[in-house]
Amino acid sequence: MSSGVNRQVRLKARPSGIPQAEHFEIVETPIPEPSEGQVLIRNLFLSIEPAMRGWVSSVGNYAEPVPLGGVMRSFTVGRVAASRDPQFSPGDFVTGLFGWQDYAAVDGSEVQRRITDTDIPVSTALGVLGINGLTAYFALLELGQPKANETVVVSTAAGAVGSCVGQIAKIQGCRTVGIAGGPEKVALCRNEFGYDAAIDYRAGDLEAKIAEACPNGIDVYFDNTAGEISDAVMKRLAVGARVIICGTASISSWDPAPLGPRVERHLLVKRARMQGFLIFDYVDRYPEGLKMLADWIRAGLIHYREDILEGIEQAPGAIAGLYRGENLGKRLIRIASESELG
Amino acid sequence: MSSGVNRQVRLKARPSGIPQAEHFEIVETPIPEPSEGQVLIRNLFLSIEPAMRGWVSSVGNYAEPVPLGGVMRSFTVGRVAASRDPQFSPGDFVTGLFGWQDYAAVDGSEVQRRITDTDIPVSTALGVLGINGLTAYFALLELGQPKANETVVVSTAAGAVGSCVGQIAKIQGCRTVGIAGGPEKVALCRNEFGYDAAIDYRAGDLEAKIAEACPNGIDVYFDNTAGEISDAVMKRLAVGARVIICGTASISSWDPAPLGPRVERHLLVKRARMQGFLIFDYVDRYPEGLKMLADWIRAGLIHYREDILEGIEQAPGAIAGLYRGENLGKRLIRIASESELG
Repeated sequence: MSSGVNRQVRLKARPSGIPQAEHFEIVETPIPEPSEGQVLIRNLFLSIEPAMRGWVSSVGNYAEPVPLGGVMRSFTVGRVAASRDPQFSPGDFVTGLFGWQDYAAVDGSEVQRRITDTDIPVSTALGVLGINGLTAYFALLELGQPKANETVVVSTAAGAVGSCVGQIAKIQGCRTVGIAGGPEKVALCRNEFGYDAAIDYRAGDLEAKIAEACPNGIDVYFDNTAGEISDAVMKRLAVGARVIICGTASISSWDPAPLGPRVERHLLVKRARMQGFLIFDYVDRYPEGLKMLADWIRAGLIHYREDILEGIEQAPGAIAGLYRGENLGKRLIRIASESELG
Repeated sequence: MSSGVNRQVRLKARPSGIPQAEHFEIVETPIPEPSEGQVLIRNLFLSIEPAMRGWVSSVGNYAEPVPLGGVMRSFTVGRVAASRDPQFSPGDFVTGLFGWQDYAAVDGSEVQRRITDTDIPVSTALGVLGINGLTAYFALLELGQPKANETVVVSTAAGAVGSCVGQIAKIQGCRTVGIAGGPEKVALCRNEFGYDAAIDYRAGDLEAKIAEACPNGIDVYFDNTAGEISDAVMKRLAVGARVIICGTASISSWDPAPLGPRVERHLLVKRARMQGFLIFDYVDRYPEGLKMLADWIRAGLIHYREDILEGIEQAPGAIAGLYRGENLGKRLIRIASESELG
């Protein structure tokens, strides 16, 4: 095992805005040996997500920044290649923060979970049955508290989190309105993710289109953008609205914070609430969320899309592509051959 | 009775920003006769409050705008001069939305309450035992949910609402930090309202002073300003912070909304909440709040200040003066002689 090569994607320079390919480098190192209590994991899928911008930023954040020269932090799905922890056996599918690399030797306690729902593709542990689906589930239901017949608006509506939010809101009996960029994503919102209305924010006239799609105002706004889309949505909040701040995809740098229209008057007049969400506050409740999401997938109530790039050399440029909106569905990198995927 | 004169302050022109004296006119009309079921009220004290800017604005609001030519909407304290409602007797002290005028004939159901706690000055029904105290009570306790040892920051800390918020937070065992304009108000915060620390925002270096006064971050921010003070406070929120939006005193016009640093990243990283508060949502619970506030006043746990102007001709310019910060304490207009005050 240790004779092989472990390719690692390391952080080479700290970006001030969105991480680009040049901020990373690929380095070859020996495959590590697991010590007592450790498992050696062969990564199969690496995750690409908007939050990675924060993870490599030096600005205060909820996670320690990835150190310069360190392997890029990432959720992955892998298989146990060797185990010195009696809880795991070779061939087990597992997920956790194993980084952008071929192999990781980690303590058994660092495995986030063993994937047992193998009737659903294991790659979903990085999307709809991972952080993305769990974020949608807990953010919408806990912070948004949607009620039947309320209007729920979702920005990045065709994305990995947003598409799941829209479908969970639909399951709750809400009217769902998706906002996405470009006709392809808007069609996906309508045809695949069941939104009652979908708006292309790039096509102009956003405020009028929101007003038309939300004649009774907006009860829940699930936001992943924090820019001009939000500015337009905030003008149509209903009394008692809940705004969930889950991401800030449209802002290229927070240092310093960009200017936007102040929100206080909307919040005051509508007695509305804006609240930030971080999935890691809900770790103890992941099993509940995963069970519901898996059941809904099996029942055909939640659809998902994946955008799979091939080969670890795609990883360095993949975050920037995500911010350019070039993916349709959850972006992943497959780094193992079919035979290793089992 | 009907032979006398009723002076009324009417809205003459609709201001785009803060109402000035020239937006009102004083008109003399006959004293109205109460019809069956009505009471005739002799107003004693008129209230002056920041929310009046919204009441005369044509921009969408939670209350219908005061019509052009209409008597200015205002809470007042008055005495019943004549009654054709068996629930009220001449001489009763009452409070309600009786307007900037000497006399009002209103249905008995329009009386907000009869003032029975006459061991405390009746003028307090317009301040600490009225909307201001009730706002402080419900906004802080319901939206802010302060816990012992948490840090509570209050903007307009020496004002009618803010001073009460600071003292209620202190009763809850919180560390309280007041922000006010000028050395006189800062001294009042420290010496009269019991703040643990008080900051003069006009003296510069606000961010550093907030950081020094709040070494563990800010758990609850009670805001009445919505401007640069808030921008500085938001940078020091603690994880799980609650921001209560109660007023927007530092913004001279919301049409269009002024620009400020976007808040989404603060809310996201700190999983913080910003929520608008309107006291009229709590009408059913006023008795509970008034009882607690009166008990705290009698126990010496809540102090209050009043800034009383003499004569109805002071009313038209009094809102602008409030926004200039020229008052120390709740601003009122006394429009009746000592003999009428009982």
